[in-house]
Amino acid sequence: MPVTQSDIALAHHLADAAGAVIRGYFRQPAGLEIKEDRSPVTLADREAEAAMRRLIEAERSGDGIVGEEYGTKDGVTNRRWVLDPIDGTHSFTAGRAIFGTLIALVEDGWPVLGVIDQPVQRERWIGVAGRPTTFNGTPVRTRACPQLEGAVMATTSPHYFGEDAALRYLALTAATSGGHNRMTPIYGGDCYNYGLLASGQIDLVCESGLKLHDFAALVPVAEGAGGRMCDWNGDPLTTDSDGHVLAIGDPARVDDVLEALHRVHD
Amino acid sequence: MPVTQSDIALAHHLADAAGAVIRGYFRQPAGLEIKEDRSPVTLADREAEAAMRRLIEAERSGDGIVGEEYGTKDGVTNRRWVLDPIDGTHSFTAGRAIFGTLIALVEDGWPVLGVIDQPVQRERWIGVAGRPTTFNGTPVRTRACPQLEGAVMATTSPHYFGEDAALRYLALTAATSGGHNRMTPIYGGDCYNYGLLASGQIDLVCESGLKLHDFAALVPVAEGAGGRMCDWNGDPLTTDSDGHVLAIGDPARVDDVLEALHRVHD
Repeated sequence: MPVTQSDIALAHHLADAAGAVIRGYFRQPAGLEIKEDRSPVTLADREAEAAMRRLIEAERSGDGIVGEEYGTKDGVTNRRWVLDPIDGTHSFTAGRAIFGTLIALVEDGWPVLGVIDQPVQRERWIGVAGRPTTFNGTPVRTRACPQLEGAVMATTSPHYFGEDAALRYLALTAATSGGHNRMTPIYGGDCYNYGLLASGQIDLVCESGLKLHDFAALVPVAEGAGGRMCDWNGDPLTTDSDGHVLAIGDPARVDDVLEALHRVHD
Repeated sequence: MPVTQSDIALAHHLADAAGAVIRGYFRQPAGLEIKEDRSPVTLADREAEAAMRRLIEAERSGDGIVGEEYGTKDGVTNRRWVLDPIDGTHSFTAGRAIFGTLIALVEDGWPVLGVIDQPVQRERWIGVAGRPTTFNGTPVRTRACPQLEGAVMATTSPHYFGEDAALRYLALTAATSGGHNRMTPIYGGDCYNYGLLASGQIDLVCESGLKLHDFAALVPVAEGAGGRMCDWNGDPLTTDSDGHVLAIGDPARVDDVLEALHRVHD
């Protein structure tokens, strides 16, 4: 079943509900804890996800739900809502409004709708399979990137790469910063960088260690704006992906990016 | 001569003038160029600095001016205005509103007034020697940090450290992320991180390679909020500093930070 207006309206309601919770905690004590997997969580994450789950259970009781904080609820349809209430909890707790709420609708394992919402700056990207991605209601496009040299690349943190991934990432960094235009990558930003890629502000995002709730929503946003998302082998991101994620604004650069990433070992 | 209300009013006018220019270029083509020292510059940097210099020349024709883009104008007083129109040009050109305009008034070589202004989010920290730092007019304080383990540290980019500095930075990272509370540092942010430190959102900023225009404005902001700024040897930042900069929200942690930084070699 294709994505309907009712699906899109529900996605907006979910983002509105999460945003109302999150704004109330921004730059306020939010009860930071570190979970067993060492990722941080706050009351804002928990309450925002709970608010979204309540809405989904009320309006789509048959759909499955996968949330970062409250786990998986199996459904009876071919659809699952994948939720990350705050992607970028480090930035959120530091008071930097470059985190986001991620909402994806996954149908038969494939993300067909994605939202990246920045509730403090009130910025919302929404991508739907087969439609142009919008930013606060206006269609956006990725920008052309005639060559990898000089491309603006972003990643959240160097600490998120394992040793092998770090070497590959540095090889890609060397390829983008080569030549006279010695821009080094931009750090921080989490999901927000993918929104900016959709808006034509950034050429490339390279990350590893992402989970389904981190990347599912990004795919319709980036691809509906003309970009390409794939894993570090160039394969499409699926629910089984290993979390090595690339977003490339100009699809003409996909082969160059993959070649640079694999220059280290292959 | 102590800082006067007229000095503070002029600092606000400078930030207003720079902000009006910068907002007009945000997420618009801004003519990015890479300078000989490999730092990026845009039309927004140049026009914002020119606007501030015009105001200073009109209102304080005897004062010196040091600007990132248009160099040094010698004055006939013991005062210099130190300007960085956009600190965080990488984030600015990527459309991330975590850069800032920096304005410092330096008297006999010592920064006595500093402004960190985020023009898109309309956020302004102002610090004046001997007065409490304010954020959008309201006094702010750094927060207590009972131990280095678990402290929230920020730095703009790992690429800005030379080899020796990188080793020391990693030693400090190990000290902050030790124990059960394994928070890794926050990346990106430039001057904005120092504002957040003044507001009690971040415990520690550690950077190297900063120039006078990058750090002069930060000192009155951080110190007027109760924090401490110094170089990596614990010495006060002066116009001759080598650009290794620490901002520490809780002065009780200064010795711990210095000890951790020097654990590598000493």
